[in-house]
Amino acid sequence: MANSKQSAAPSPRVRVKRLHERGHYDAETIHGILDAMPICSVGYVFNGQPYVTPTLQWREGNHMYWHGSSASRMLETVDEADVCVTVALIDGFVMARSAFHHSANYRSVMALGRARKVKDRAKKEARLKTFVDTLFPGRWDMLRPMNAQEFKATTVLSLPLSEASAKIRTGGPKDDEEDYALPIWAGVIPVTMQVGTPIDDPRNLAGVLPPDHVKTLRLG
Amino acid sequence: MANSKQSAAPSPRVRVKRLHERGHYDAETIHGILDAMPICSVGYVFNGQPYVTPTLQWREGNHMYWHGSSASRMLETVDEADVCVTVALIDGFVMARSAFHHSANYRSVMALGRARKVKDRAKKEARLKTFVDTLFPGRWDMLRPMNAQEFKATTVLSLPLSEASAKIRTGGPKDDEEDYALPIWAGVIPVTMQVGTPIDDPRNLAGVLPPDHVKTLRLG
Repeated sequence: MANSKQSAAPSPRVRVKRLHERGHYDAETIHGILDAMPICSVGYVFNGQPYVTPTLQWREGNHMYWHGSSASRMLETVDEADVCVTVALIDGFVMARSAFHHSANYRSVMALGRARKVKDRAKKEARLKTFVDTLFPGRWDMLRPMNAQEFKATTVLSLPLSEASAKIRTGGPKDDEEDYALPIWAGVIPVTMQVGTPIDDPRNLAGVLPPDHVKTLRLG
Repeated sequence: MANSKQSAAPSPRVRVKRLHERGHYDAETIHGILDAMPICSVGYVFNGQPYVTPTLQWREGNHMYWHGSSASRMLETVDEADVCVTVALIDGFVMARSAFHHSANYRSVMALGRARKVKDRAKKEARLKTFVDTLFPGRWDMLRPMNAQEFKATTVLSLPLSEASAKIRTGGPKDDEEDYALPIWAGVIPVTMQVGTPIDDPRNLAGVLPPDHVKTLRLG
């Protein structure tokens, strides 16, 4: 990332302290990581105990969203509560000449703030449509429409991205200068997320083929 | 997973409540997920605020471990503190005939408990060797040995897996019976983690080739 893109940390709480040169605070970088990786971890406090729930997130503008059953403990607990949501992607293992300098290449985002339920029915529908169509463009309108009972059973949470930071490592190992003389293999082992060939449901009707949006999914 | 393998939840806090049929509590299942996915999320409370830190974890026996700089806020905060550590792998997107029945196939683990620093130097070395050699068998002994300053600068945290649960979804979509008559493509889009071809560090000595452990890495 160009330094010119880096703005200041929006708060001391999300400022990247360890290895601060890996920190980024601009919306383009933060949005790019959220858009590349739907799995997130929602951290919250319940009876004084920290909990982390893995779930899927999506982004619309400068908010991130996640959803689940209206009966979920996590979703009830985090409404109007302080949360920490992180997204992390591993891009490679960085192999150095000493154990100490081994590392990983990664892209991560941490967002802090108060989560809130999307209560308005039209807004909830719009957010869920974005969730489906972000991953699978055009799919929402191909589906059997969502009914009132399903809307009621589904809770959508929102979090503004006003207090967020990204942390990124790229590139090869950085060894101690004297270790470069050692005959030890060093380098990077890349890691990517791979989308496989779609598997038809055995109950698909004859002649129903996978739409384009099933074949174009990319992650990472 | 066979039902015969399922033991009871070790505590109400980690019992899988939503979709409880996806819950597993046996060591074999929990260990298998931890061993398949090194990225974890460490949840903790600092000044009343939840935080989640993505980092790498490894397992030895019935404990999980993670490490970092001795100057890290997370590692200092979680020593002797209650944490929640989760690991989550996505195996596929489950595409149904209604938005409501879309889902994901995944494997996840949640472990609760008190994290503790590994203070003994010999034990710390043994844990770090396991970390390196679990991912890259035999690598530890090929490296320039760790020195006293590096041991001091590295903190290793441990968490017993005595209060842990796994949650797993597999298989295809489960639609409402009447929706099977609709001409909508349904199925599963598999997702895997792919390990790429190792990239040599430009400063490798002439004739130094990637060892076998660089080529055998598998994730997921």
